[in-house]
Amino acid sequence: MPSQPVKKETGVLPSTGLLPMEELRAALRAVGDQRYHHQHPFHLLMHEGKLTRGQLQAWALNRYYYQSVIPIKDAIILSRSDDPEFRRAWRKRIVDHDGDLHAKGGIEKWLKLAEATGLDGQRVASKQEVLPATRYAVNEYLNLVRTRPLLEAVASSLTELFSRDLIALRMDRMRQHYPWLSGGLDYFEARLDQAPEDAAFAIRYVYDSAKTRAEQERVIQSLRDKCDILWAQLDALYFAYVQPGWPPPGAFRIEN
Amino acid sequence: MPSQPVKKETGVLPSTGLLPMEELRAALRAVGDQRYHHQHPFHLLMHEGKLTRGQLQAWALNRYYYQSVIPIKDAIILSRSDDPEFRRAWRKRIVDHDGDLHAKGGIEKWLKLAEATGLDGQRVASKQEVLPATRYAVNEYLNLVRTRPLLEAVASSLTELFSRDLIALRMDRMRQHYPWLSGGLDYFEARLDQAPEDAAFAIRYVYDSAKTRAEQERVIQSLRDKCDILWAQLDALYFAYVQPGWPPPGAFRIEN
Repeated sequence: MPSQPVKKETGVLPSTGLLPMEELRAALRAVGDQRYHHQHPFHLLMHEGKLTRGQLQAWALNRYYYQSVIPIKDAIILSRSDDPEFRRAWRKRIVDHDGDLHAKGGIEKWLKLAEATGLDGQRVASKQEVLPATRYAVNEYLNLVRTRPLLEAVASSLTELFSRDLIALRMDRMRQHYPWLSGGLDYFEARLDQAPEDAAFAIRYVYDSAKTRAEQERVIQSLRDKCDILWAQLDALYFAYVQPGWPPPGAFRIEN
Repeated sequence: MPSQPVKKETGVLPSTGLLPMEELRAALRAVGDQRYHHQHPFHLLMHEGKLTRGQLQAWALNRYYYQSVIPIKDAIILSRSDDPEFRRAWRKRIVDHDGDLHAKGGIEKWLKLAEATGLDGQRVASKQEVLPATRYAVNEYLNLVRTRPLLEAVASSLTELFSRDLIALRMDRMRQHYPWLSGGLDYFEARLDQAPEDAAFAIRYVYDSAKTRAEQERVIQSLRDKCDILWAQLDALYFAYVQPGWPPPGAFRIEN
């Protein structure tokens, strides 16, 4: 896989010393402020109540592909660590998404959300109508965790530093603007606690594992690259279903 | 890598017998008619003379990423064959793109085209300002040739069945509408002969190698998937540089 080149802008000052935890956290937060998808126009429309039911269907159907790949992504990360303590901690993520005897997992909950938009669950789960561009962006996440150093693979999960605020806002706005979706919000409810727990573990791990400033810079770059992967998914939705509104051949089409 | 699901529409009739060469060729041509990027709105604007210099720069800069990956793609295919005769034939493609002592390769010629648009060659070659969505689509091409059976990897090259016509039209329209680009067309000139030669070898190979109708169907699906990869690159260009015109953070921006 050709490696992602380091982009020009950085979220940190160009000094060379190892960043203390609070400065590393601030640098990561700066990346989130600039690049996390809370600012994407598709999300802004969503939160203003301006998306149609069909557009929300397209979002739920495409985002299902992302959800379906998350445990695969986490299993790749698990497979790359030779530390049983790390693996014990990380496997929680797979349980959260795939579920167990006692609880439904995130993928099943996301399907419930998709059904609340009015889509048939089997149709969504088949993943046949996912935008190719969604597929490519999500598969790039797998490429990232498979081919880059474990430190960077873990760092790519740090978008969870920002997800709680976005989810809390989204749940509030969904209940307000799309009350017919209210029965489908279990996925978000669970993530309100899971995401901050996962982010706390991951930031501690990258702080302890990055032994040089150059490694810390790669941690920050990895978060930037992950933000790009999330952003590109919304660009693809916007292009296909908002403006100009051109889904490619074979992809989901909104019924009028 | 999660495999690409077989999409619903197919280019062939649902009979079960092995297709003779001419029917296989017709089925592949039908995929091209439906999905090849000669019909993409970005190309239509290009051929009508309606793209600005800045939009042509964005196209050349992004497409450079695709060109730069082609010999890597072909080396992966080479690495997957245990047949020296196949490898001797296939390595021509790497020479065509990377060049040798006697001739410049396609990558260098593409850079000349990018320079003819007014961009600095080093800036383009750095690949720093490529759209993430371009990168993801092109990297998916690498995923495809790396993870799917060799037959399907070879079949994904069959877009070259259609490229000569598109290139001939493009050269004509570029000379007409963008005469300042005329000095940068060496890449296309070379492809006029190379692409049909390569396509003839590949279609013969897939015809001889596919021993069942199911394998032939996978050949056809592989071409469909490759068309999607090309199409998605133009969707990303259109979204970022035509309408709504929103390049993501860090990507190339058109100067006014």
